[in-house]
Amino acid sequence: MESGPCSRPAEPRHCVSGRAGAGLAFPAFPLSAAGAEPGSRIGTVAAVLPAGGCGERMGVRTPKQFCRVLERPLISYTLQAMERVCWIKDIVVTVTGENMEAMRSIIQRYGHKRISLAEAGATRHRSIFNGLKALAEDQPGCELTRPEVVIIHDAVRPFVEEDILLRVVLAAKEHGAAGAIRPLVSTVVSPSADGHLDHSLDRAKHRASEMPQAFHFDVIYEAYQKCSDFDLEFGTECLQLALKYCHRKAKLVEGTPDLWKVTYKQDLCAAEAMIKEKISQEICVVVNTKDEESVGHLLEEVLRNELNCIKVTSTVLDRTSGDIENFIDQCYSFICVNVVSSESRETRKLLSILEESSLPLLYPVVVVLVHCFDFTVVPLAQKMENLVWIRELAKEAKGRNVLLSGVLLNHSQDCCCSSDCQVKAQMLCG
Amino acid sequence: MESGPCSRPAEPRHCVSGRAGAGLAFPAFPLSAAGAEPGSRIGTVAAVLPAGGCGERMGVRTPKQFCRVLERPLISYTLQAMERVCWIKDIVVTVTGENMEAMRSIIQRYGHKRISLAEAGATRHRSIFNGLKALAEDQPGCELTRPEVVIIHDAVRPFVEEDILLRVVLAAKEHGAAGAIRPLVSTVVSPSADGHLDHSLDRAKHRASEMPQAFHFDVIYEAYQKCSDFDLEFGTECLQLALKYCHRKAKLVEGTPDLWKVTYKQDLCAAEAMIKEKISQEICVVVNTKDEESVGHLLEEVLRNELNCIKVTSTVLDRTSGDIENFIDQCYSFICVNVVSSESRETRKLLSILEESSLPLLYPVVVVLVHCFDFTVVPLAQKMENLVWIRELAKEAKGRNVLLSGVLLNHSQDCCCSSDCQVKAQMLCG
Repeated sequence: MESGPCSRPAEPRHCVSGRAGAGLAFPAFPLSAAGAEPGSRIGTVAAVLPAGGCGERMGVRTPKQFCRVLERPLISYTLQAMERVCWIKDIVVTVTGENMEAMRSIIQRYGHKRISLAEAGATRHRSIFNGLKALAEDQPGCELTRPEVVIIHDAVRPFVEEDILLRVVLAAKEHGAAGAIRPLVSTVVSPSADGHLDHSLDRAKHRASEMPQAFHFDVIYEAYQKCSDFDLEFGTECLQLALKYCHRKAKLVEGTPDLWKVTYKQDLCAAEAMIKEKISQEICVVVNTKDEESVGHLLEEVLRNELNCIKVTSTVLDRTSGDIENFIDQCYSFICVNVVSSESRETRKLLSILEESSLPLLYPVVVVLVHCFDFTVVPLAQKMENLVWIRELAKEAKGRNVLLSGVLLNHSQDCCCSSDCQVKAQMLCG
Repeated sequence: MESGPCSRPAEPRHCVSGRAGAGLAFPAFPLSAAGAEPGSRIGTVAAVLPAGGCGERMGVRTPKQFCRVLERPLISYTLQAMERVCWIKDIVVTVTGENMEAMRSIIQRYGHKRISLAEAGATRHRSIFNGLKALAEDQPGCELTRPEVVIIHDAVRPFVEEDILLRVVLAAKEHGAAGAIRPLVSTVVSPSADGHLDHSLDRAKHRASEMPQAFHFDVIYEAYQKCSDFDLEFGTECLQLALKYCHRKAKLVEGTPDLWKVTYKQDLCAAEAMIKEKISQEICVVVNTKDEESVGHLLEEVLRNELNCIKVTSTVLDRTSGDIENFIDQCYSFICVNVVSSESRETRKLLSILEESSLPLLYPVVVVLVHCFDFTVVPLAQKMENLVWIRELAKEAKGRNVLLSGVLLNHSQDCCCSSDCQVKAQMLCG
């Protein structure tokens, strides 16, 4: 999965790099077509994620980035969203000393890649500055490559997609600075000193500044080097620093509602529900033959048409390429169609890939095993034999949090037509 | 439940009033001590809830106020939060013509009280103005009483509590206008015409204007009567109208995080999770004797101490007052302690009260039936008999979405001490 400029996680001396690990388990972020080959357009890109906040607004002791959503720390989803984007070379996370060890173990447990850790500062701006220093090459001990463009994103915005990252980076490349914005949900008012309304702002003329933001590295690094202690202490807006100290008027890019920041307790509830929903909306059809005319591929086609709201992807199991791992990375539900043989070999292979991934750590993975036989040819004993090994395998898989069930389909090799498949697919959907 | 000035729902000729109904089912809003007798301090208060929005930001066809959260329309939770507050005399909801019938059926199904409907306008301000007209008494056909203070609240902020309503109303009474505010979650920026950052606002000097707001009725009604078509068409901020047309600088009142507005799909998910959590955090102990020294009341005391995170309230079943209905209004979990007798009469009575309420429409109601016997005195046959009728009653109740289970406790009348109860309470908690 790691190729080109992203292949070697950097290991700066005063930074702690996360080990390269297995593909991870968050199916929320499809790679956009635009992101297929953006490397040539945008040069080297790195990201800084300040994660030093204490989460006081959440009303809980755990800093919000470490709060667990479906048994997994929130920041892990954000890291996964970032590392999915193959053209982001390095991801520097700034963490307070007391959370450094916890962060290291999150990286290890969930197999995060291309992550370096740097010490957070006392404020948001100081933390970001520390992250930039780790990338700057002019600091002693820094071994990360100075990028052309740097993304700054929040650890508590896990739903960022490649599309908005790319748009912000391209805008930054052109204008020196860029950031995502959203319409205001509430009117903004300016209170007087005695707590009365002084004036209210025209909602149509203002926007909420969200994340991600991106900058020419030189621009934002210069801004941080020049900026006052007051700014470092009380400021929050990177775009403002680029404007004030480097006279770059950031390009503002309209973002999507899912950029929202997990701030309050209700946001954690919302994040959980959103993750659950996304997980339930993708099925991967795994076929053990490349033959495009086979019943497996026709079945996939029909499922795609029948299940309108569900994203159906597919892969071929017997390839030696990393294809299957890529799909596993995005999906918790599999339909495996065994066409050529009815052995347990392919199924065991899939189960062991699933086990090696950290996928079943989080939620039960559902695998429906479909065996296609011509019932007029296959004797009853063989059918029973299949049912028996599927049941045994299911029992074994359950211990690994994989729920396996089997379907035997009557399928004549001579009669592989679409309407035939339709009936079978409806059986599966029903 | 309706007494004093709130007893008669007004029926203006061009408004459609909701019928008075049974107590409702949202345990989120405990009556604060401050709200016990505020009527004398604040005079007559009414509320206007604009609910004419089309919910375009939600990305779904149903307007967000009518989206279902746990099978119940969002607006119903907000109405319940408002009608819980006994000093709000009338609640005017403005609804578009096409949703009028749906709104009427919501009022009927969930037994909302003190609600009048008025036709929404094409914009938020026009809708609020229509709501005010329904209260103004100077319009033909209006039979509602002109209030001294009017609250304006959003139909999509279901978690409003009595405390903030009272604080905003008291501030409005003093200053003519008042509104809840919250810290900004994101920095607010002002874009230039070509979509670049012009300047960013100092977060510390600005606040998000939220709801509820409250006004002297005369102030806000005059502001709406004076205000321009442009304001009615493009404005959103009532505080701004009071400032611009009546020179009242609204008092800004710091609100709590739960004032948040359900705007996007993720907010619906959050609302659902919050409602579920609140429901699970309240138990009502129902005792069939007034005797304060009885095992039932001691048990309640111990439960209160043992279950720190759970709110334990209590009531006596055999009263003729409306007490039990009040508790039912806030709670989905009951522990009924039968001390004096072991008949099914009291239990049947509770079940029929539950059935008459609309409570089990929404979620299963859990009733744990505790019978206290002195096992050395009560023969086995009688114990068995009790188990049998509890089981039969449970079967019957299940059809009404009430999950009934029974516990027989060995309790000697002579030995009613706190430590004895402790053991029994732990049995219940465990």
